[in-house]
Amino acid sequence: MASTSPSQISEQALTTLLADVRAFVDAELLPLEPLFAQAGRFDAVEPQLNQVREKVKANGWWLPQLPKEVGGMGLGLTAFGRLGEVLGRSIFGHYVFNAQAPDAGNMEVLLEHASPAQRETYLEPLLRGDIRSCFAMTEPDNPGSNPLQLSTTALQQEDGRFRIDGRKWFTTGADGSAFTIVMAITDPTGHPYGRASMLIVPTGAEGYDLVRNIPVMGEAGDGWMSHGEVLFKNCRVPADQLLGNAGGGFSIAQERLGPGRIHHCMRWIGIAERAFDTMCSRAVSRELAPGKPLGSRQFVLGWIADSRAEIDAARLLVLDVAQLIEREGGYAARHRVSLIKFHVAGMLQKVLDRAIQAHGALGLTDETPLAFWFRHERAARIYDGPDEVHRVRLAKAILKDYRASQNDTRAAPTT
Amino acid sequence: MASTSPSQISEQALTTLLADVRAFVDAELLPLEPLFAQAGRFDAVEPQLNQVREKVKANGWWLPQLPKEVGGMGLGLTAFGRLGEVLGRSIFGHYVFNAQAPDAGNMEVLLEHASPAQRETYLEPLLRGDIRSCFAMTEPDNPGSNPLQLSTTALQQEDGRFRIDGRKWFTTGADGSAFTIVMAITDPTGHPYGRASMLIVPTGAEGYDLVRNIPVMGEAGDGWMSHGEVLFKNCRVPADQLLGNAGGGFSIAQERLGPGRIHHCMRWIGIAERAFDTMCSRAVSRELAPGKPLGSRQFVLGWIADSRAEIDAARLLVLDVAQLIEREGGYAARHRVSLIKFHVAGMLQKVLDRAIQAHGALGLTDETPLAFWFRHERAARIYDGPDEVHRVRLAKAILKDYRASQNDTRAAPTT
Amino acid sequence: MASTSPSQISEQALTTLLADVRAFVDAELLPLEPLFAQAGRFDAVEPQLNQVREKVKANGWWLPQLPKEVGGMGLGLTAFGRLGEVLGRSIFGHYVFNAQAPDAGNMEVLLEHASPAQRETYLEPLLRGDIRSCFAMTEPDNPGSNPLQLSTTALQQEDGRFRIDGRKWFTTGADGSAFTIVMAITDPTGHPYGRASMLIVPTGAEGYDLVRNIPVMGEAGDGWMSHGEVLFKNCRVPADQLLGNAGGGFSIAQERLGPGRIHHCMRWIGIAERAFDTMCSRAVSRELAPGKPLGSRQFVLGWIADSRAEIDAARLLVLDVAQLIEREGGYAARHRVSLIKFHVAGMLQKVLDRAIQAHGALGLTDETPLAFWFRHERAARIYDGPDEVHRVRLAKAILKDYRASQNDTRAAPTT
Amino acid sequence: MASTSPSQISEQALTTLLADVRAFVDAELLPLEPLFAQAGRFDAVEPQLNQVREKVKANGWWLPQLPKEVGGMGLGLTAFGRLGEVLGRSIFGHYVFNAQAPDAGNMEVLLEHASPAQRETYLEPLLRGDIRSCFAMTEPDNPGSNPLQLSTTALQQEDGRFRIDGRKWFTTGADGSAFTIVMAITDPTGHPYGRASMLIVPTGAEGYDLVRNIPVMGEAGDGWMSHGEVLFKNCRVPADQLLGNAGGGFSIAQERLGPGRIHHCMRWIGIAERAFDTMCSRAVSRELAPGKPLGSRQFVLGWIADSRAEIDAARLLVLDVAQLIEREGGYAARHRVSLIKFHVAGMLQKVLDRAIQAHGALGLTDETPLAFWFRHERAARIYDGPDEVHRVRLAKAILKDYRASQNDTRAAPTT
Repeated sequence: MASTSPSQISEQALTTLLADVRAFVDAELLPLEPLFAQAGRFDAVEPQLNQVREKVKANGWWLPQLPKEVGGMGLGLTAFGRLGEVLGRSIFGHYVFNAQAPDAGNMEVLLEHASPAQRETYLEPLLRGDIRSCFAMTEPDNPGSNPLQLSTTALQQEDGRFRIDGRKWFTTGADGSAFTIVMAITDPTGHPYGRASMLIVPTGAEGYDLVRNIPVMGEAGDGWMSHGEVLFKNCRVPADQLLGNAGGGFSIAQERLGPGRIHHCMRWIGIAERAFDTMCSRAVSRELAPGKPLGSRQFVLGWIADSRAEIDAARLLVLDVAQLIEREGGYAARHRVSLIKFHVAGMLQKVLDRAIQAHGALGLTDETPLAFWFRHERAARIYDGPDEVHRVRLAKAILKDYRASQNDTRAAPTT
Repeated sequence: MASTSPSQISEQALTTLLADVRAFVDAELLPLEPLFAQAGRFDAVEPQLNQVREKVKANGWWLPQLPKEVGGMGLGLTAFGRLGEVLGRSIFGHYVFNAQAPDAGNMEVLLEHASPAQRETYLEPLLRGDIRSCFAMTEPDNPGSNPLQLSTTALQQEDGRFRIDGRKWFTTGADGSAFTIVMAITDPTGHPYGRASMLIVPTGAEGYDLVRNIPVMGEAGDGWMSHGEVLFKNCRVPADQLLGNAGGGFSIAQERLGPGRIHHCMRWIGIAERAFDTMCSRAVSRELAPGKPLGSRQFVLGWIADSRAEIDAARLLVLDVAQLIEREGGYAARHRVSLIKFHVAGMLQKVLDRAIQAHGALGLTDETPLAFWFRHERAARIYDGPDEVHRVRLAKAILKDYRASQNDTRAAPTT
Repeated sequence: MASTSPSQISEQALTTLLADVRAFVDAELLPLEPLFAQAGRFDAVEPQLNQVREKVKANGWWLPQLPKEVGGMGLGLTAFGRLGEVLGRSIFGHYVFNAQAPDAGNMEVLLEHASPAQRETYLEPLLRGDIRSCFAMTEPDNPGSNPLQLSTTALQQEDGRFRIDGRKWFTTGADGSAFTIVMAITDPTGHPYGRASMLIVPTGAEGYDLVRNIPVMGEAGDGWMSHGEVLFKNCRVPADQLLGNAGGGFSIAQERLGPGRIHHCMRWIGIAERAFDTMCSRAVSRELAPGKPLGSRQFVLGWIADSRAEIDAARLLVLDVAQLIEREGGYAARHRVSLIKFHVAGMLQKVLDRAIQAHGALGLTDETPLAFWFRHERAARIYDGPDEVHRVRLAKAILKDYRASQNDTRAAPTT
Repeated sequence: MASTSPSQISEQALTTLLADVRAFVDAELLPLEPLFAQAGRFDAVEPQLNQVREKVKANGWWLPQLPKEVGGMGLGLTAFGRLGEVLGRSIFGHYVFNAQAPDAGNMEVLLEHASPAQRETYLEPLLRGDIRSCFAMTEPDNPGSNPLQLSTTALQQEDGRFRIDGRKWFTTGADGSAFTIVMAITDPTGHPYGRASMLIVPTGAEGYDLVRNIPVMGEAGDGWMSHGEVLFKNCRVPADQLLGNAGGGFSIAQERLGPGRIHHCMRWIGIAERAFDTMCSRAVSRELAPGKPLGSRQFVLGWIADSRAEIDAARLLVLDVAQLIEREGGYAARHRVSLIKFHVAGMLQKVLDRAIQAHGALGLTDETPLAFWFRHERAARIYDGPDEVHRVRLAKAILKDYRASQNDTRAAPTT
């Protein structure tokens, strides 16, 4: 995958970059948060964000997750991971660097699998930030935890075109997208892992219908900050909309998820750091009684100490896995990716909860971003496979090594 | 307090009542939840709820928390606690029985302290359900955990009127209220516990301004389901708007909070039971693979077992404290009230979290009430004193007994 | 079961009894704890304990768990539960009242199932406290969590005698016992639940061998405070040593465990109360700096508050189940018994851990009983079925009700 | 400090070394564990361990924590940390490499502060492994969490000799030691941080009395595996037994603790890895029912996944701090050392608890080392400063940075 190519940046240059980007995020994006909070709509800040995007481009920071050959910064996965943490400090960090999900994942898939024509039509404008895209995989009637259970079909017709029928939901950013990459069954009788393919569907295609933006934690959202329910009903696309090989859907999805999860994890760490920052600032500024700041209380000190340890541990774990992916590839690292997925998501929820508690009633309002993340990042433990699925997968992989070595008790399994 | 008078209902009659009310809540109120979820506004269901209120009255269930003498059911605190759990199954349960916060608390205060004229003007229409009211205590610039730190003043002027100045927030249900009971400093140089008084302020009074409904977890809400920021600016009310004695504010507030916290706790248990119910229904109906329901997984079984134990323990604790209040009064029970306040709020958050996790992405939507409670009952650990304040108070009270008995190690402290 | 018969004591008399017994335990038993701690052997205190037993008899407190007809106090399960908590304050409480496991359970089984001859030979001296007994069920090679997996056989020979072969362990108190009740397969080809029987084996029988006292947490112990590994090797006993019906082993075991678990739970609550007591005494007496007792620290206050809430909740749960058993019998209450088994054991471990932490290095020594309980009651989450088995059982029972009511969503499962 | 000098080993050589030592530990030390468990005494294995020490020397692995100049391996702190984890797999790992506490810490102090005569008399035989030593700091009557509260005095007499009076406890390994380094007040009226000094006291000195080996978790232990209570009563030593500068006690103690805590942390990770290993081996070998190994259960899989994540996170944190110490010294890293101290100790307790639960009753016996560690490493959260002290210290240091930057909200505190 593109994002896993080795870093093209020195440690020193990276340190400077991180400091610069942090200052940039704090100066350009944090002031936009109240505006968003007040309006509760993405389109209330979209124009300003698009202006910031121009500054990002001017600074040479566009597409930090991609190689230089395609207009990115060429950071490599680990270095981008560290940058992604800084971007995560703001709700809009990834967006203004054109590194936001689901577009970043779609870019990677297109870079790897798109035909020249597909590159020109879909990838190029995506890289330029002229359009947005979405990824339609999860279905309301099937557990997201089992990717083999899909109902949506894309059956090739006599005229060569694919007819797509099915219902998807939690299609992030469908609202306003120029196209979606859809995962559908193309070969219902094939091998379970070879039944599905990916297809590119322009959102203007007949039979494609964005039914609604699903209210998540009470908010339907809009534009990039929404999760759509999409109905494909006798939706027909030409044969050349197939992305990659027929039957390759699962394998592309697997590829897409590995680095994507690293991105999520580092973004969560950025959120956790921001929450920590907010909690500590509150602890030194809020007085419970004259001369007795909140931070004089052991309960609060305990939250701070535990959060510091847990965030730092999580970061080291994620960067360790990022390096493993760079060294050995996503497949070799897949169980380690499971490990950080559930571990970091759990850490995030704990840190956000403590930061809110430290703010009292203020923590429930939108005067800090804590409440936004508390409700919207509850999803972190669910999407891309719930905690439970990742914990079981990891443990089973570990035990597999133990079973193999059962007659050789000296062996040291090291998954 | 009114609600602490002994029960006037037999165990058998109560059992029947609980079953009847449960069936009523499920039949009349649960179907209204999607309507509310879709609109995200209280006024979208208010007319229907007011119709249900008429059925409640017709069934003789109006004001279940109050004595018969004032038109209530005469259940007493413990029996009402058990009913309160059933009402808590629905977001609207307490409202349609006219037992909702903050009106229920205001009714109690007025019953105890209102002058005959105040009773007629404010209490009577409140009991009838003709108007709503609010309670303005918490201030943005002072920690809610320290009731002695108040900035709002109500200084008596030469003409005898009180001039009120100050800012309050998290004034629940201010939007649409006919009057507010405000807590303010009337004697700035008095003894710390005797500085504040309560006053009744009609919301139409000059100088009274509902600045906004504060967005809580992203939702400003409306009507009864809102939390207002209220500005008093040179607001003047006649001397006879004083409620109870001058300087009696803190003691009235204390009285008000004890039974109010029991009400909250039992409502939270009702919410937890509904979440449990929803989780178990999901566990038997959702299939992860053909013939493999969610409930075949040990992780899910663990959530169910732990939740069952924790909810039941919480209920027994609360009812035990309710009985203590009935026997010995709110003051004697104040530390036990602290105990259940933090313990039950913590239980609620755990159970809601598990129930959401069991639902996967669906749990994040408003297709169940789980997400609503997850975001709005996060406040349970904060309002009426954050967990930390209650834990410290309880522990200090316990240790006080130990210090007293330090020379008499055989004594058995029993707080 | 004997212990489940209704109480024959008034609430007032019980209150007095509990205070008297508490004072007795504190005066007679707590002073013996250092002696035991120093020697690390039961026989170092056994003579003194047997003297205390005489005082217990003189006070009319002997066999508090049994009906008056057989020389007990006739308290009934709930009232004995409350007494059991008081006895649990000391490591030796149950022993001196002749209410200790495993004898108490054996007495119940014998009362219910023993033949007149068996009563005279085994039950009578047990009730008098002249002998001790043990119960051999768990086997090293089979999971204790699955009672259907038993390897020990007791096959009836042509001469009518049973030949017993097999290995048992964790046979509590085998050292010094006069007889053991052993669970063994008597009908290998019978229905899984009808294969096993119980037999009474005098410990002097040929082929019966107490191989060793198993070191548990490093201590082999001795006498009543030991857990034996017992080998049956061509051990032959007459036919009339069969206890109850042939094939009735499992059903007797089930009967035995229900009230036994209540006894354990209330004993654990007594231990937790003692730990709480010790922690609070430490909090007011230990100074971290002049004038700054340990109890001035929020961390410690938090432990105290949480422990208070969790212990009280656990007690209410257990007494609620005891009442259910009294009303409806052990079978009806079996899933509730599972609930308290894991819930109370978990509470105990948390409270002990906090109490130790509050004592610092002192908590690791035997100068308080905390360290003894910390290491020996770790078993609470394992014996009589590990937590995991009870959680799964409870949850499955709950879901069974939900499945049954799936077409009738109004129904309210109430396991 | 000696152990913080930079590594003199390549990554490749280290990898080979770790594998070799792991194989060595498993082959030479694991088989001795049952012997120790059975006897419950260190002297039951001491002769064998001393034989293994010769093999360690022959392999060139002696004193891995020390620079080559003094006969060590010259690994540096980080590389030794990784080796320390491998040694931690066995209860005796550090001992046979002569890297055990408290000798390792004493060696470092002596290397830094001993006079030439002291080096010859005390350090040289210690490095050779000919003698053992102990470190007398903690006092029964003063909180270990506050090093400024010391009662033991060492007052210089007219004849120049120091007269030492006081009581110490938890003096690890006092039994059999040739000398102790004692911390005592030499200047009672000096600045609080300059009152204490360190002195070397031969254990044969008059007035030095090893009162007893304190039973810890019920075991008094012996030799290196014991914790002594030591009474100094009119104990006189010559002036040249002063170690380092007069009044330098606290600063030497601080120096001693930093790397010592890294050593502990890595040893704990080694223990956790061994527990993990044991749990996984059990999961694949123990059958709950035919064909249903323990490891088919989600509860067990959950323990494995969570433990894997927590151990790996802990290791990365510790190695990160070890590198920080190598780069910037122990003082700069002191708050990070606090962070790992409480974080890793907490992780260890959780992993041990799960591993025991996975073993059922077997986990309580000494047939695995789990029960030994469960009871003896409970101390990890207490010695060298309890968790609470480290959490408060870390949080206060973090908040100090925030207070400093309060007027400069853009600043990014990075403690």
